[in-house]
Amino acid sequence: MTAAERRSVARRESEHPRFFNAERETMEPARREEIVLARVRHQLTYVYEHVPFYRRHYDAHGFKPQDVASLEDFTRKVPVVTKKQLVADQAEHPPFGSYLGVERSELARIQGSSGTSGRPTLYGISTDDWQRSHEVSCMALWSAGVRPDDVVQISFPFSLFLGGWGLLQACEALGACVLPVGSLVPTDQQVRFLADVGVDVLVATPSYALHLGRRAAELGVDLDGSQLGVVIVAGEPGGSVPAIRQSMSELLGGADVIDLGAGSSSELYPFYANVGCRHTDGGVHLIQDENFTEIVAKDDPNEPVAPGTSGGVVATHLWRRSQPMIRFWLGDEGVLDDAPCACGRTYPRLPKGVYGRLDDMLLIRGANVYPSAIDAVVRETPGTGPEYRIVVERRGELDELRVEVESEAPLAAEDASGLGAELGRRLKEALSVRVDVAVKEPGSFETQVFKARRVVDRRAAVGS
Amino acid sequence: MTAAERRSVARRESEHPRFFNAERETMEPARREEIVLARVRHQLTYVYEHVPFYRRHYDAHGFKPQDVASLEDFTRKVPVVTKKQLVADQAEHPPFGSYLGVERSELARIQGSSGTSGRPTLYGISTDDWQRSHEVSCMALWSAGVRPDDVVQISFPFSLFLGGWGLLQACEALGACVLPVGSLVPTDQQVRFLADVGVDVLVATPSYALHLGRRAAELGVDLDGSQLGVVIVAGEPGGSVPAIRQSMSELLGGADVIDLGAGSSSELYPFYANVGCRHTDGGVHLIQDENFTEIVAKDDPNEPVAPGTSGGVVATHLWRRSQPMIRFWLGDEGVLDDAPCACGRTYPRLPKGVYGRLDDMLLIRGANVYPSAIDAVVRETPGTGPEYRIVVERRGELDELRVEVESEAPLAAEDASGLGAELGRRLKEALSVRVDVAVKEPGSFETQVFKARRVVDRRAAVGS
Repeated sequence: MTAAERRSVARRESEHPRFFNAERETMEPARREEIVLARVRHQLTYVYEHVPFYRRHYDAHGFKPQDVASLEDFTRKVPVVTKKQLVADQAEHPPFGSYLGVERSELARIQGSSGTSGRPTLYGISTDDWQRSHEVSCMALWSAGVRPDDVVQISFPFSLFLGGWGLLQACEALGACVLPVGSLVPTDQQVRFLADVGVDVLVATPSYALHLGRRAAELGVDLDGSQLGVVIVAGEPGGSVPAIRQSMSELLGGADVIDLGAGSSSELYPFYANVGCRHTDGGVHLIQDENFTEIVAKDDPNEPVAPGTSGGVVATHLWRRSQPMIRFWLGDEGVLDDAPCACGRTYPRLPKGVYGRLDDMLLIRGANVYPSAIDAVVRETPGTGPEYRIVVERRGELDELRVEVESEAPLAAEDASGLGAELGRRLKEALSVRVDVAVKEPGSFETQVFKARRVVDRRAAVGS
Repeated sequence: MTAAERRSVARRESEHPRFFNAERETMEPARREEIVLARVRHQLTYVYEHVPFYRRHYDAHGFKPQDVASLEDFTRKVPVVTKKQLVADQAEHPPFGSYLGVERSELARIQGSSGTSGRPTLYGISTDDWQRSHEVSCMALWSAGVRPDDVVQISFPFSLFLGGWGLLQACEALGACVLPVGSLVPTDQQVRFLADVGVDVLVATPSYALHLGRRAAELGVDLDGSQLGVVIVAGEPGGSVPAIRQSMSELLGGADVIDLGAGSSSELYPFYANVGCRHTDGGVHLIQDENFTEIVAKDDPNEPVAPGTSGGVVATHLWRRSQPMIRFWLGDEGVLDDAPCACGRTYPRLPKGVYGRLDDMLLIRGANVYPSAIDAVVRETPGTGPEYRIVVERRGELDELRVEVESEAPLAAEDASGLGAELGRRLKEALSVRVDVAVKEPGSFETQVFKARRVVDRRAAVGS
């Protein structure tokens, strides 16, 4: 047995029960779907009755909780929630928005986004949600290979960012020993801790894990002879990218590299429901009976896509009461695999993690508008040219959407007007939102060839 | 009622039970001393039998646990432990020293000193000690005015430093809501949180609390109209200095300022047993049935001093199993007051907190040597001049102590040799350690008039 094998997740699994909660983790999928459906219906009723943000959102879309009788109904009928909506709601109803869902006195924690672009988004977590999250987070850590006799070095910042706190609490609940160095300890010292303290598990972003490994080599610190057996990475996509995984393992003493949190976000933490295992070789299991994850069409979050088809990630808290996310649109692209995993867990997976950011959805007068949907309508309308722009402006209290499109050939004013009217009619039908259309001469816009930037959002400039 | 009164500790006490654990906090002192004595004897037996560091230390001093039949015996007979001894022991027995006291698998947490001058000192806390510390830390927070419906903003760094972690866990155990901003959130944002999120309690160092208050004034943030009612300060002496207390209160919306941790240290955390109340007006209660604090002669930690007499602070964990501190010499100067406090707690107090650092004790071949004791012997020996130096060197494996002293008047070689022999004899008698003496001509040393620096410790230079 090599040193790396001795410290591996496989060895850990041979010496402990394989699952943290075998009943949940190996449940027959059809039975699990019944539980998910029941919880989905419970949550829809809860948020409609107790969370003003959702009541308004659902009323604006003409949706009622009782419309959902199946998981397909859930996907097809429930409007998604976006980050932009949450930010706007917190600005209107400070500090927690109108989606807190509980009394302030019930909160155990207040965390926040980094707020690099101004006011941080605040996350409020109630005491019961905080307690409940320990179970699923322990399941996730167990899948990653963490065991109660491990020393876990957490190199995430401990401040507003929620991620590290959830991990810390989960390690404590599991009975592991935590060395919470955070982000304030210099890298050279963190490297020495890995070797000298007898750290079994490192938690870091992929880029910091690589940095630690490279620095260990420069300092001549022998990680091959260390106890380090597992490297859990989160916060960036690298944990599911084969080349990055291999570099991390090589630089960090041959440790198993496990992805955590791909397809999740601070809105969904501290519930860690997305985690790899030693068999997934990158990618994550989706602990669907905690947070229910759907993959949907990239331009229509109410259109399910089949396993194997790339789409957008949408996630739902099945149990959370404080700031519950119901069909939260993450803006991440992923693909579902529901084939059995060798680990024995019956959860489906995101085998490639998440691998792209989808166009940010636009929120226009409460409705979600996808630039890709506008793109499709423009392309299908006869007489339009190759370039167009989507302009969003605020007029008074209202957001206005205008599409400026080149005609295919020079047009007389009357024909241009006719093309504009036709495109406007088609867009209204597709988006359920009124769109102004302006037809421009061919060549009015610079041609976009790579990572096209056709959305001009002028709302952000107002008041800034 | 003014806004500040509405948010005050007095108001909080009127709306909740006054004590977190009335039985412990209002116990008759004589009854409490019985408990302390029983625990002291328990701990002495425990460390002598299970903790190699203490066994060696006590054997070297000829001390046996059964020698202690009273608290006076405890003070007079048990040799103290110093920071330097702990550092040396960890260097010899990495990573936790030979005083861990528990199996590594029992640890819940590993924390450390900042390690600014090299390798950090590691603190290991077992799961049962971590759990036990919640009770006394809740008692401390309650005395400071924290209640379960409060939002507590903790502006301590969350990394190796243990202090903030203990507070965080105590707030959670109390049921308060924590906003753990740490030290990574910019000051302006921290000021806005105080006002916008509805923070009831701020925890920070005195200097950072002042900085936040000044910045609030510069930004025009109204803290008088905020919910901030209590400012808990720790980590520096300012919380018991009247002028600093007043500035903090004025700058922070008239909040009550409570000192925490004066006379404690990272070796004693996460057990928060030193805390003010709204009546102490600075200073701290000593929760003696958790950590037993003694005030002793500045130059002799085995010599008790009466309440009202300034002395050195020595503290003992009565319940901790992992890295227990038994008569730990903090190097801080304080004075004890055992008069009743208006709050009703029967614990004695350090009414001025701690207000000075005592000469660092020297550790010479396992024995504690006080520069002030050497000073006394030199002054009392006829024929010595006004200046001298204490030189500590390592020769091979051993520390050697040499006193270089001026003679009062120029001496012939034979008389100088006689003076040296006499001084050496007196020092050996006083210190129980052999001391080399070298007699120098008058005027050999620069005169020391303020904060005399007469100790030259050359051991630190070896190998660096």
